[in-house]
Amino acid sequence: MNEFRVSNPDFIQTVKKSFSKQGLMRHLGATMDVIEPGYVSITMPYSEDLTQQHDYYHAGSLTSIVDSACGYAALTLMPPNTEVLTLEFKVNFVSPAIGDHVVAHGRVVKPGSIITVCQGEVVAIQDGSEKVCAIMQATMLCRPMKEND
Amino acid sequence: MNEFRVSNPDFIQTVKKSFSKQGLMRHLGATMDVIEPGYVSITMPYSEDLTQQHDYYHAGSLTSIVDSACGYAALTLMPPNTEVLTLEFKVNFVSPAIGDHVVAHGRVVKPGSIITVCQGEVVAIQDGSEKVCAIMQATMLCRPMKEND
Amino acid sequence: MNEFRVSNPDFIQTVKKSFSKQGLMRHLGATMDVIEPGYVSITMPYSEDLTQQHDYYHAGSLTSIVDSACGYAALTLMPPNTEVLTLEFKVNFVSPAIGDHVVAHGRVVKPGSIITVCQGEVVAIQDGSEKVCAIMQATMLCRPMKEND
Amino acid sequence: MNEFRVSNPDFIQTVKKSFSKQGLMRHLGATMDVIEPGYVSITMPYSEDLTQQHDYYHAGSLTSIVDSACGYAALTLMPPNTEVLTLEFKVNFVSPAIGDHVVAHGRVVKPGSIITVCQGEVVAIQDGSEKVCAIMQATMLCRPMKEND
Repeated sequence: MNEFRVSNPDFIQTVKKSFSKQGLMRHLGATMDVIEPGYVSITMPYSEDLTQQHDYYHAGSLTSIVDSACGYAALTLMPPNTEVLTLEFKVNFVSPAIGDHVVAHGRVVKPGSIITVCQGEVVAIQDGSEKVCAIMQATMLCRPMKEND
Repeated sequence: MNEFRVSNPDFIQTVKKSFSKQGLMRHLGATMDVIEPGYVSITMPYSEDLTQQHDYYHAGSLTSIVDSACGYAALTLMPPNTEVLTLEFKVNFVSPAIGDHVVAHGRVVKPGSIITVCQGEVVAIQDGSEKVCAIMQATMLCRPMKEND
Repeated sequence: MNEFRVSNPDFIQTVKKSFSKQGLMRHLGATMDVIEPGYVSITMPYSEDLTQQHDYYHAGSLTSIVDSACGYAALTLMPPNTEVLTLEFKVNFVSPAIGDHVVAHGRVVKPGSIITVCQGEVVAIQDGSEKVCAIMQATMLCRPMKEND
Repeated sequence: MNEFRVSNPDFIQTVKKSFSKQGLMRHLGATMDVIEPGYVSITMPYSEDLTQQHDYYHAGSLTSIVDSACGYAALTLMPPNTEVLTLEFKVNFVSPAIGDHVVAHGRVVKPGSIITVCQGEVVAIQDGSEKVCAIMQATMLCRPMKEND
């Protein structure tokens, strides 16, 4: 996991800049924590704006941050002047997502020039104790950045 | 598709009541359109609060509404005093989600006393023309409603 | 569905030739039925060699044929001198797979120069009555054929 | 991972007996290696009967053994007189599956009285070197065993 080769020396700035443009992350109150080669984490404090009918985090709010975490984990390993697109993902919800905040971890499993495969998880933290509430398996596409990006 | 057997005569009220409690749907500006046995649709107008880095709808915002559409489609066929939980889903993003608004359609493929399987899609509408931008395959769980629900 | 554009005039021969090389299909007793632009079907008669512990078709044998059906459905729309690879798929098993034979249907949902998204299903046929037993959502990759293929 | 609670003291025999009834595993030449609480591995030597069009292992043959590995990993933790059913799975194929043999590892991520979530992987071994070629995320159902099982 630690042996990923970085081809974009400015990958941290590239990821930060792209993340800052995601209106949804801002709207959900999500912030990026850690950016490392092949790994990104995103935190999202609890709010009633993020819930399903039982006041737990909605599957959609959890999926939003773990998708971004996986996508940006993939982007850390992509060449300069490329961008990342989510082709597809699958998420299992393994525990009710109850907590003061949740943290999404995205990790590259297999990088590639076209396709990068990632795994992610969302951990709910309540009173200091952690519980995995969702796990993701995702497929990301690398493509050349367009002129106006 | 039209031959589903409804066991909760108040399924429309049950679905509406549950949907109204989903803070995330309100926060994303999503509203429920149609509730029929085995089918639900949800609309979400475009906003900068829903976007990824290229100003398209974020995969997470699309997933949020099609998850709710599939979950409530499943709930229309469940007995009274039960509730629906998303066990897992998989989503493919097949076109950039650009539009004035998007509509998520959730449909039951196979109902069951414990497990209900659904398929969903999100259609982006721009200037009256429609384009499918995401397709979902989801597994929903039916369980007895808890006292305080 | 009928409006797919074919870019390989010999797509039927291309698909037949590739299918004939799949040792697994032969070993499972699977044969290709229909090859149309964006659609392929594969039939597999019942045998004890295909079963799980209750003498139904094993999830793996069903997945094998619907993966091939989706992959070759994608290949019908790809240019000459390219090949198809399965990037990933997801399958829901919605009914016990009991029958004299099963038929897998693979259909292109969204073709593309790099990525093609497909949906598939497996239908079990017993005494003339049909039942859907599995549904698939799959992502296929198109790449240039190598010299020795 | 090591802290799973076993409720069936005969889980090894239960798993072995069920596996021995899977005609497909026999037909593919697959054998069970390790059975531990929450973990099962299955080996499958290379054969032309298992291949796709480039003589690699077919996605279907890989999926077959990792599905069985995940299902039986789940069964190790289930109570006596129950059985396991695959509700659904998703598999990413991350490298060409070339090797003398492949080993599928199935692990329980989250056990439950009704639903058990597993992750699996298939490793290809060639001349002693290992390479992950597929990763699975799967949802298993526990249900009471029927009289004649």
